[in-house]
Amino acid sequence: MNYRTDFADERLEICKNYDKNGVKVYNKKISDKIELCRVNVKSNEAEKQLNKKIGTYTTINIKDLEIVTKEEIEEAKKVFTEEINKFIKDAKSILVIGLGNAETTADSIGAKVVNNLKITRHILKYEPNLLPENTISISAIAPGVLGTTGIETEEIVKAVSKIVKPDKVIAIDAMATNNVNRLLKTIQISDTGIEPGAGVNNKRKEISKETIGFPVIAIGVPTVVDSDVIVAQSFEKLAKRFEQFNFLKDSSFEDKYKLVKLCSEENLVVMPKDIDSLVDNLKDIISYGINNYFVY
Amino acid sequence: MNYRTDFADERLEICKNYDKNGVKVYNKKISDKIELCRVNVKSNEAEKQLNKKIGTYTTINIKDLEIVTKEEIEEAKKVFTEEINKFIKDAKSILVIGLGNAETTADSIGAKVVNNLKITRHILKYEPNLLPENTISISAIAPGVLGTTGIETEEIVKAVSKIVKPDKVIAIDAMATNNVNRLLKTIQISDTGIEPGAGVNNKRKEISKETIGFPVIAIGVPTVVDSDVIVAQSFEKLAKRFEQFNFLKDSSFEDKYKLVKLCSEENLVVMPKDIDSLVDNLKDIISYGINNYFVY
Amino acid sequence: MNYRTDFADERLEICKNYDKNGVKVYNKKISDKIELCRVNVKSNEAEKQLNKKIGTYTTINIKDLEIVTKEEIEEAKKVFTEEINKFIKDAKSILVIGLGNAETTADSIGAKVVNNLKITRHILKYEPNLLPENTISISAIAPGVLGTTGIETEEIVKAVSKIVKPDKVIAIDAMATNNVNRLLKTIQISDTGIEPGAGVNNKRKEISKETIGFPVIAIGVPTVVDSDVIVAQSFEKLAKRFEQFNFLKDSSFEDKYKLVKLCSEENLVVMPKDIDSLVDNLKDIISYGINNYFVY
Amino acid sequence: MNYRTDFADERLEICKNYDKNGVKVYNKKISDKIELCRVNVKSNEAEKQLNKKIGTYTTINIKDLEIVTKEEIEEAKKVFTEEINKFIKDAKSILVIGLGNAETTADSIGAKVVNNLKITRHILKYEPNLLPENTISISAIAPGVLGTTGIETEEIVKAVSKIVKPDKVIAIDAMATNNVNRLLKTIQISDTGIEPGAGVNNKRKEISKETIGFPVIAIGVPTVVDSDVIVAQSFEKLAKRFEQFNFLKDSSFEDKYKLVKLCSEENLVVMPKDIDSLVDNLKDIISYGINNYFVY
Repeated sequence: MNYRTDFADERLEICKNYDKNGVKVYNKKISDKIELCRVNVKSNEAEKQLNKKIGTYTTINIKDLEIVTKEEIEEAKKVFTEEINKFIKDAKSILVIGLGNAETTADSIGAKVVNNLKITRHILKYEPNLLPENTISISAIAPGVLGTTGIETEEIVKAVSKIVKPDKVIAIDAMATNNVNRLLKTIQISDTGIEPGAGVNNKRKEISKETIGFPVIAIGVPTVVDSDVIVAQSFEKLAKRFEQFNFLKDSSFEDKYKLVKLCSEENLVVMPKDIDSLVDNLKDIISYGINNYFVY
Repeated sequence: MNYRTDFADERLEICKNYDKNGVKVYNKKISDKIELCRVNVKSNEAEKQLNKKIGTYTTINIKDLEIVTKEEIEEAKKVFTEEINKFIKDAKSILVIGLGNAETTADSIGAKVVNNLKITRHILKYEPNLLPENTISISAIAPGVLGTTGIETEEIVKAVSKIVKPDKVIAIDAMATNNVNRLLKTIQISDTGIEPGAGVNNKRKEISKETIGFPVIAIGVPTVVDSDVIVAQSFEKLAKRFEQFNFLKDSSFEDKYKLVKLCSEENLVVMPKDIDSLVDNLKDIISYGINNYFVY
Repeated sequence: MNYRTDFADERLEICKNYDKNGVKVYNKKISDKIELCRVNVKSNEAEKQLNKKIGTYTTINIKDLEIVTKEEIEEAKKVFTEEINKFIKDAKSILVIGLGNAETTADSIGAKVVNNLKITRHILKYEPNLLPENTISISAIAPGVLGTTGIETEEIVKAVSKIVKPDKVIAIDAMATNNVNRLLKTIQISDTGIEPGAGVNNKRKEISKETIGFPVIAIGVPTVVDSDVIVAQSFEKLAKRFEQFNFLKDSSFEDKYKLVKLCSEENLVVMPKDIDSLVDNLKDIISYGINNYFVY
Repeated sequence: MNYRTDFADERLEICKNYDKNGVKVYNKKISDKIELCRVNVKSNEAEKQLNKKIGTYTTINIKDLEIVTKEEIEEAKKVFTEEINKFIKDAKSILVIGLGNAETTADSIGAKVVNNLKITRHILKYEPNLLPENTISISAIAPGVLGTTGIETEEIVKAVSKIVKPDKVIAIDAMATNNVNRLLKTIQISDTGIEPGAGVNNKRKEISKETIGFPVIAIGVPTVVDSDVIVAQSFEKLAKRFEQFNFLKDSSFEDKYKLVKLCSEENLVVMPKDIDSLVDNLKDIISYGINNYFVY
């Protein structure tokens, strides 16, 4: 399975046969526009079947983000704040890593969030009296991507973590999805680490407790879909509606994707045209949530 | 035919049956990376069949723009400069219009070129001694798009043209194409005017001599492809290779596109992931050509 | 007097002898951080003495904008919204003009506000059902500056106003001040029009009811101070403190400024180092106020 | 002496009495617009007197950078390329550090250069065949500033250097100057390391061979002058011209600066108004020079 999705709930749909006892799913409709899904992968078997590591994956889905009102954005901020706090719990020092390439819109969400954070670590160190007691130590870096630094991102993150020694690392990145309806409308939070570049098809070394030595909360936003996935999805829909496509009816999505891949030439992606402003909206929601985790 | 291409040479390929005497085509390979195609639409019949107005359309195609060397960019600048000069001819006053939305990468090429021009009109007016004799008057504006101004772009351009009274207007915009291989690698120059927003599927009123009263040279760069076009093209390729798709063999591209459209939900576009840097390269090439038309 | 301030209340301080009956001043402390000053210039005499046209000038002063809390920003938004509404009154159609150069931080406030507005004019025209009844028509343009367009801004604004025929034009621009404590901390609203470029020392033709034919509300933000003003102000302070500077004690500020000018070489300006983020804060406050004037 | 300049040749002017045998100065006029000055600090005594470490400091001065022609920019690129190569010598692996804050124009030169480099380290590691033999390994990072990361920049640079183990580190930053005529017109190259933030008055830990373990070439560009320096300089000029200022005639610049400081309130800086475009020009010159050091 090499067409990509990084979302746990999408994996559940794709791999229909998995250890149902090893997975707990919780769905909640918060409002007309906002839905939440929490997936707990608990067994090794489920981990293998779903290709998602044991851990918790929370997905916040915001419908019609391109036309939401200010009030709906405020509500999304509130929901995200609550959920991210469940992951941060009682950390007193947090290092935020903005993964991705700030110069490429589709890959810029991590760097944009980092630019929007209230940083406290240096004030706590040099002028603690300027801040309320019990202020959380927040530090952050946007290390760039392999193509613009020439250095493995995982190695930079590991080295910076060693300097800061945070209770938790929060890593933010663009993610891959198979679902065009989720593009720039969904935020996944998980406690299992992250593979930088997955969202833009350049999978690099994992950033997780195993590789960097500190627990990693991953925040992911889907920004692009592989254009071959779109073609395979068209086949699914056509096969349901037109009998000439009957021969595709029994093939899995994976098979359809492989078929498309055979004739596909360039490595193109599908995005909404107004991606620039949608990335800005999501940056506001995510940085708001982290900025609100200020005093413990 | 409502899947879109604004390129004259692509229209020739799509509409195979057209008045061959009414069209003159000239192809030239400039170098390994750069090809030129000039299409002259001469008869009313050809105009109707191709849905391209009588006039000249020059297409400069630059292969592999994402990995070209500095020398290849220099060559592309030279070729574009020569070709745009054939259109400008002996104009002594030029008004450049950067169409599109500066805040949306896929639609920003026009505004970016305008930001990169050497403007002379006000110096010629207030301090002509600062410039060499016979300096061309260059003025420019990026009027924004209907969605960000609330005002028809064509009306703004008409009003500004009346102030400047230029010999020629050059209008630069993102264009639509059906050919993913051309995305951000092709520049079309024509003397027939432009429909703003065509490239991003929001066709607005034409900007041409007929509507604004001054001759309009249009410079277009394809930045996105409708994702339904990609699916229909996959069908074409699959039908050539796999017999199960035989039933599609005799249908036209148009029919395939209509079929896809039936099951398509959202208005998505396909772009290269590195669109941000490709737009920058093309901005450099186009503004170089205009900036070199300085003294007549 | 050619060292510049565009603020009515600063002019009162500089020109101590003016027709006191021709001017009404109202001061209000809104909170610890926010102060308001309203100056009504009523007589022709005062107009001439102060070099400020007959009309109303409201100044909102926000202390320590670089360290304000989110709550203080919210309060500033509220105060600005109330004050701008007093100027807009019952206009049903508004054209917003973002003056200045988007590419120069110190001169970008106008263009940035325009990019942040909710535009309704085209929706009211083409799909009025999408909006609540009695929605105000908002249109906007950032026409650029003479140096980047080659066209007098006043002429573009006049031409665009003729298309839109708004009840009121709101023109936003960087302004000049003599008071470093006001840099990027003050917003002046007036009903007397604006001279574009005043804030960056390139005074151009006035934009007012007289020149464009529609009433003009001007919103100005001081972003730079002429560096010679800073030197003259140092003299004022030193003369108060050190007897060697006694010879300056009786000279006016104007005389001191002229003295400095004699030895000054380059045309430099003084700004806060963090001007980029302060411009962003002010953009938020101003666009919030205009966006809230939505339904009458 | 706490008014700041980081330029060796300016220190020579300020500290008139220093060990002349311990300093070698070489001046060269390259063209009408470009001048070069090389200062070798050789003795410990001179190091102490000038407060510049033993080493070589090359200054390239480009007159009128705001109005230079394309040809003059090309010449500046050539001169800078030659000079930087004298410092790089035979390094086969280079790590470029873009110091400063990308979001603050006056402090963004380092990050902007890093964004403009051709990075090779990862290609040499994973696909060396794509590059010519003997290609130099170039890697780069823009680590941010203490205020936006909460982490000492020097510690990040040290950690990243340990990963890359380069032959030379090139660190690029905004610098302080006392000379307004040099603002955004001068590039200093030295082999003695750098103090990040010096240019924006936030001096942090030194980045040099002593602190990070790898030799550091520093490239500095003056972007701001402390506004108190401007006032003190006005005094110098006035004292030469007007007898009332005679009392200042015998005081040193340092004394004048201290006097001004006594009455100065805010921490303001002086910059040219068109700083945004000047930073862009300098970014082009510096990145061109580094990009040309490609094959040894």
